Amino acid sequence: MGADKRIDLNADVGESYGVWPMGNDREIMPYVTSANVACGGHAGDPNVMAATVKLAKMHGVAVGAHPGYPDMPGFGRRVLPFQPEEIKRFVLYQLGALWAIARAEGVELSHVKPHGALYNLTARDETTAQAVAEAVRSFSHWLPVVCLAGSTAYDVARNLSQPAYQEGFADRRYEPNGQLRSRNSVDAVLHDAAEVKRQVVQLANGYVVASDGSRLERHVDTICLHSDTASASVFAGVAREALEAAGFRLMPPVSQREV
Amino acid sequence: MGADKRIDLNADVGESYGVWPMGNDREIMPYVTSANVACGGHAGDPNVMAATVKLAKMHGVAVGAHPGYPDMPGFGRRVLPFQPEEIKRFVLYQLGALWAIARAEGVELSHVKPHGALYNLTARDETTAQAVAEAVRSFSHWLPVVCLAGSTAYDVARNLSQPAYQEGFADRRYEPNGQLRSRNSVDAVLHDAAEVKRQVVQLANGYVVASDGSRLERHVDTICLHSDTASASVFAGVAREALEAAGFRLMPPVSQREV
Amino acid sequence: MGADKRIDLNADVGESYGVWPMGNDREIMPYVTSANVACGGHAGDPNVMAATVKLAKMHGVAVGAHPGYPDMPGFGRRVLPFQPEEIKRFVLYQLGALWAIARAEGVELSHVKPHGALYNLTARDETTAQAVAEAVRSFSHWLPVVCLAGSTAYDVARNLSQPAYQEGFADRRYEPNGQLRSRNSVDAVLHDAAEVKRQVVQLANGYVVASDGSRLERHVDTICLHSDTASASVFAGVAREALEAAGFRLMPPVSQREV
Amino acid sequence: MGADKRIDLNADVGESYGVWPMGNDREIMPYVTSANVACGGHAGDPNVMAATVKLAKMHGVAVGAHPGYPDMPGFGRRVLPFQPEEIKRFVLYQLGALWAIARAEGVELSHVKPHGALYNLTARDETTAQAVAEAVRSFSHWLPVVCLAGSTAYDVARNLSQPAYQEGFADRRYEPNGQLRSRNSVDAVLHDAAEVKRQVVQLANGYVVASDGSRLERHVDTICLHSDTASASVFAGVAREALEAAGFRLMPPVSQREV
Repeated sequence: MGADKRIDLNADVGESYGVWPMGNDREIMPYVTSANVACGGHAGDPNVMAATVKLAKMHGVAVGAHPGYPDMPGFGRRVLPFQPEEIKRFVLYQLGALWAIARAEGVELSHVKPHGALYNLTARDETTAQAVAEAVRSFSHWLPVVCLAGSTAYDVARNLSQPAYQEGFADRRYEPNGQLRSRNSVDAVLHDAAEVKRQVVQLANGYVVASDGSRLERHVDTICLHSDTASASVFAGVAREALEAAGFRLMPPVSQREV
Repeated sequence: MGADKRIDLNADVGESYGVWPMGNDREIMPYVTSANVACGGHAGDPNVMAATVKLAKMHGVAVGAHPGYPDMPGFGRRVLPFQPEEIKRFVLYQLGALWAIARAEGVELSHVKPHGALYNLTARDETTAQAVAEAVRSFSHWLPVVCLAGSTAYDVARNLSQPAYQEGFADRRYEPNGQLRSRNSVDAVLHDAAEVKRQVVQLANGYVVASDGSRLERHVDTICLHSDTASASVFAGVAREALEAAGFRLMPPVSQREV
Repeated sequence: MGADKRIDLNADVGESYGVWPMGNDREIMPYVTSANVACGGHAGDPNVMAATVKLAKMHGVAVGAHPGYPDMPGFGRRVLPFQPEEIKRFVLYQLGALWAIARAEGVELSHVKPHGALYNLTARDETTAQAVAEAVRSFSHWLPVVCLAGSTAYDVARNLSQPAYQEGFADRRYEPNGQLRSRNSVDAVLHDAAEVKRQVVQLANGYVVASDGSRLERHVDTICLHSDTASASVFAGVAREALEAAGFRLMPPVSQREV
Repeated sequence: MGADKRIDLNADVGESYGVWPMGNDREIMPYVTSANVACGGHAGDPNVMAATVKLAKMHGVAVGAHPGYPDMPGFGRRVLPFQPEEIKRFVLYQLGALWAIARAEGVELSHVKPHGALYNLTARDETTAQAVAEAVRSFSHWLPVVCLAGSTAYDVARNLSQPAYQEGFADRRYEPNGQLRSRNSVDAVLHDAAEVKRQVVQLANGYVVASDGSRLERHVDTICLHSDTASASVFAGVAREALEAAGFRLMPPVSQREV
């Protein structure tokens, strides 16, 4: 029973590039249990990747790959017209690159979470979800893909028998249909610590209250915190404390494959 | 005894980029036993890499990584001011990227050969040779590094206990001190098929005649053919035929680690 | 009257990149009267740009800018999700870059022709056409934009009072509605010299026969030849000869502004 | 006489890239009279360039080009092995690109200041200084190059009859030989407002006190403030106030060509 009371907190990190810093990796790392490290596609470079893996290792944080559209100028936030086969190849390219750099630090990758526009597209588009899941599968049958909870991405991964984690978001407002409110809306993001606290505990307990007050059943294996806001580490601390107070152990998920 | 009469023929391939073709990979592939595939640093991209791995696989050719300075505009032919730690990281980045793409094609990498300015620098500079060898070693203790025969690169790899192959060049003129004549000299490259034929058989037999007529003892595990000249496949055919006529079996080297 | 019997032949050139060659610039240049030089967005780099401008100058060929989506991996053939303001800025960036390099060779730019996906989009999408025309206009009120004859791009430029040239294609099949047959069709391109010859003379005379045999009235100021096919210079010679035989003087258009 | 009591304050700006911010352009702009805008070589992109030009224009600040080695990963701080002809071409490329973007905002460029490693190399290497000065000259005989006061770069520009401004540094320590103390030294940069205040007034008055206490005569037309430090705008305010208190009018230099 206690084994069920566990939850993972993840954050996107390693999104600096060359001399340009991004995010608050040092502040957020003590609070999370999994880190999604950019792979030189939408952000990151070999130096940043190595430094980020070291930092995660120092904090005992699981390291995953965070591949994105190869689009530095757009930070991976734009859907680019790539064929599914091309998506497969650039995901493999980035995944392998981080895998090698992590290996040199004695770190084995624990998951793959697509970034930005690629993540969002896999959540609703089967072809793209298939391309990403196949890329990960052709790399390793054991490596879990992180998917929006209840999304197409998750169904596709499961149909391929690829391990997958379902993800919830600590500070994003949910629509009644289970999607995230678009960032174009002013109230897409929760700015109040109390709201964040309430939402993470709900998610860990298997549901979330949508924008219209309705309750959505949503099993999540991992909860995403944002690392690039001023209050990132504050919210991370709040989230962690609330989860521990609610009786959860903070740790990376157990891959379904291992069970 | 017959086991000693074997030699590897290699070529640098996969050096196209996007819509821009380079080299004659389809023509040369039937003649070689090892292919060094560019990894998106000095040339190549995920699509080109996947296509090149498929092509090599179809011909039963061993696939190795061919990492270079991350310098598309300079095609990896310029020494760039990278720190040893940075060299290690970009070599790992490129190596891992190809490893993942090859793995998706069911191909395991068989060697690593640095490209262009990086190869030449490892041949004479211990620090750079150390950075490259350590990068490969931190990826795998079994993966051989291809080094100019008798060079600093080879000594460094052996001191690290990293497997290494010694390489000779089918169509490059050797200086009496064992170095390759600079490409700045008009007679750096052999253009006559008879000369190429003679040199590959010499190399396979453990020596080479330098520009001044002196004989250099040089054990080589593999001989490099160039794939980017008009006569590339002609020379490749000549080289292969001459080696077979001299009693050599053409096949990838046996890694020292395996022996 | 004789003054009307003039026509311009143009080709896209300078599309090499670094060590990667593209096209047959040296073969085509003697036949054309205008050259559209890539500006480092979809192809080209400062070295290639300078060499191409020199080559055009040597042949007395007018030099125009050929800006495209900043997308080397896709060679500017993909529509990328840029905002109109962003399109304006990258067109200006590329245009200014070539303008400066040309100026150093004593060459003044004579026109701007968008490349690939950007050209095609301006032909049918008013917002994109407006962005490109405004970019050119904010650079110079005298610099003509090259537009598909009879297209949205042309209307937009004229409404802005920006000079514009109407363009026809020597070797592309026309649909009855005046659009070019999609390159996805097998018969999109004319491969027969006699057909090319017939079409260029038709275009110079103000019409073209569409795929269904219907006659389309189309005034064109300039006719595009392709430089990247094996038969490029043969077709260029055929086109030029046919036009001269039909009484046309080959020369760059007169900008409407100048009249 | 009063006409001599003028001095220019400049800062390097527009060094963000895509989503990655850099510097404190908004804080520093009110204090300077000239802005050196990155041109997409070492930093900046078309969007950043346009926004920076607008910002400078709003504050009535003169806009110059700040070209650097085309080396985003190294931020232009590494000397790369470019031939002089290549340097000329990439400087022209970047200069023209900014010129076009500035023109669209109704802003004429007022000067060119090379960035980072390129600036430092022009200060001591005649070949590089010549390449940069020739690039600027082939663009415009009227456009001044900003050079380290008393350096090779200045001599070269003057020999070419190209206008040039001599530059001093508000917060860098000078060696007795007139060079800047290397950034590798711990005391390369002045961190004390009183020191900065003293040094700018000295420079405006035609001299500077070197690290050993000796007085160096140095005419400067412009003084560089750094925009990328936490205290940038504080020091900028201090510098400006000190110069005004000493009777100087803050304004861009008068080009020697105009006199």
